[in-house]
Amino acid sequence: MTSDNKPSIVFIGAGNLASSLAAALFNADCRILQVFSRSIESAQLLANKFGASYTNVLPNINIDADFYFICIPDKAIQRVVNELVNPKGIVVHTSGSTDISVLSRFDNHGVFYPFQTFSKGRIIPFDVIPICVSANNDDTFNKLYNLASLISKRVLPMNSETRSWLHLSGVIANNFTNHLLALSYQLSVEKGFSFELLKPLVLETAQKAFEGNPSDSQTGPAVRFDESTINLHIDKLKEYAPELADIYKALTLSIQSLNKNKR
Amino acid sequence: MTSDNKPSIVFIGAGNLASSLAAALFNADCRILQVFSRSIESAQLLANKFGASYTNVLPNINIDADFYFICIPDKAIQRVVNELVNPKGIVVHTSGSTDISVLSRFDNHGVFYPFQTFSKGRIIPFDVIPICVSANNDDTFNKLYNLASLISKRVLPMNSETRSWLHLSGVIANNFTNHLLALSYQLSVEKGFSFELLKPLVLETAQKAFEGNPSDSQTGPAVRFDESTINLHIDKLKEYAPELADIYKALTLSIQSLNKNKR
Repeated sequence: MTSDNKPSIVFIGAGNLASSLAAALFNADCRILQVFSRSIESAQLLANKFGASYTNVLPNINIDADFYFICIPDKAIQRVVNELVNPKGIVVHTSGSTDISVLSRFDNHGVFYPFQTFSKGRIIPFDVIPICVSANNDDTFNKLYNLASLISKRVLPMNSETRSWLHLSGVIANNFTNHLLALSYQLSVEKGFSFELLKPLVLETAQKAFEGNPSDSQTGPAVRFDESTINLHIDKLKEYAPELADIYKALTLSIQSLNKNKR
Repeated sequence: MTSDNKPSIVFIGAGNLASSLAAALFNADCRILQVFSRSIESAQLLANKFGASYTNVLPNINIDADFYFICIPDKAIQRVVNELVNPKGIVVHTSGSTDISVLSRFDNHGVFYPFQTFSKGRIIPFDVIPICVSANNDDTFNKLYNLASLISKRVLPMNSETRSWLHLSGVIANNFTNHLLALSYQLSVEKGFSFELLKPLVLETAQKAFEGNPSDSQTGPAVRFDESTINLHIDKLKEYAPELADIYKALTLSIQSLNKNKR
């Protein structure tokens, strides 16, 4: 801890996740000590929000912080780990799919994985976001658990294997659904209806999904095995965008395979 | 109109859509005159909620109603149309993908398409649901528009071609996203994490999608062109469920194709 007993934190990375996390921790009375980014502009921009120092030179990182948050793309983690001096504080990464073992050269290390999608400039309440925590020893785990509890009511221990499946389910439930919405948006622009018309439908889909197994509330031509509507749709899409027709077919088959008993 | 000036309605079909629509119209002071269903139990169950008569014999349908709502699967519409006596009132179907012309043997006919997913026993506020209306003449259109306006603040004229694209976008944005959530649910059960953890993520995805083009807020390994995470996921899924690996690949390719400029 620094002299005033506030947890002090160095951020390695200055992207969407680092920005959201730093803001939440700062608001929970943590001290953001320093921001590192390969881009000095990004480092400075984020650091200035919290009166922190900044650098784009990894060996210049302050080694007196309580926590080091690595918030960078998975493929860049190993290189940063190799270049980082072993600090006194706890080093964590924030990735869903990278194993904790990548940090094993640090005495005290762990994973601090907030399970949410973060976009630039979008402020979302952190307190409902699940934070999955693991560490290489009990003391480190407790410190990470306590830190996470400052910003979220939903902190839970999770090992790397389960976390990687959770991350994969997030890719399916967020990245892929968002892309389907993007494809619908494109359709709306090109076929002349307002995308806003889909809002009640999409919000209802999201709400309803958490009242049980979403498969139980599956509707539409696929689960009705309504082959004439399905073929009509595939024909329309083949003309409009053949790649979308393939996605339509694959998802329809998958729905029918999960619901064969309803035939 | 019946003697008391309430619009009177006969429902042909007693499924989820008919149930929701009949309840909304009943609450808006319409008279539900009769319910037809091939299953007499379903007809009776729905009719009893509104003090309506019921039948499973199409020629027994009351011919004095103001409106006839055909709420049955697309493939069954033509047969019902063939068997139905030409009534004085307006005959509508409620399908997203069937052309209005299927009803051309009726003097006054139209389409009344509420754009939402309806599930048994789930009550959702009707007033925000878009209702797309079309008709074969102005007088019929006006009557349908006024009827729809009793239950929704979002009534709009829409021709069959645009409606079929809107329906297709609904299949993509609701049926397919719901199925992806069902696959995530299955993963959560089999890999030992709580599906509830996905709730903030999924609600945020749905909310964020309507703040612009959802493609602008696409996140995840596909749009980052993070091939090592993508391959890790595909390997995991190949072992877990090969069919899911194919969906993963197809959607990842589609995301990357829509976002090639971000590479």
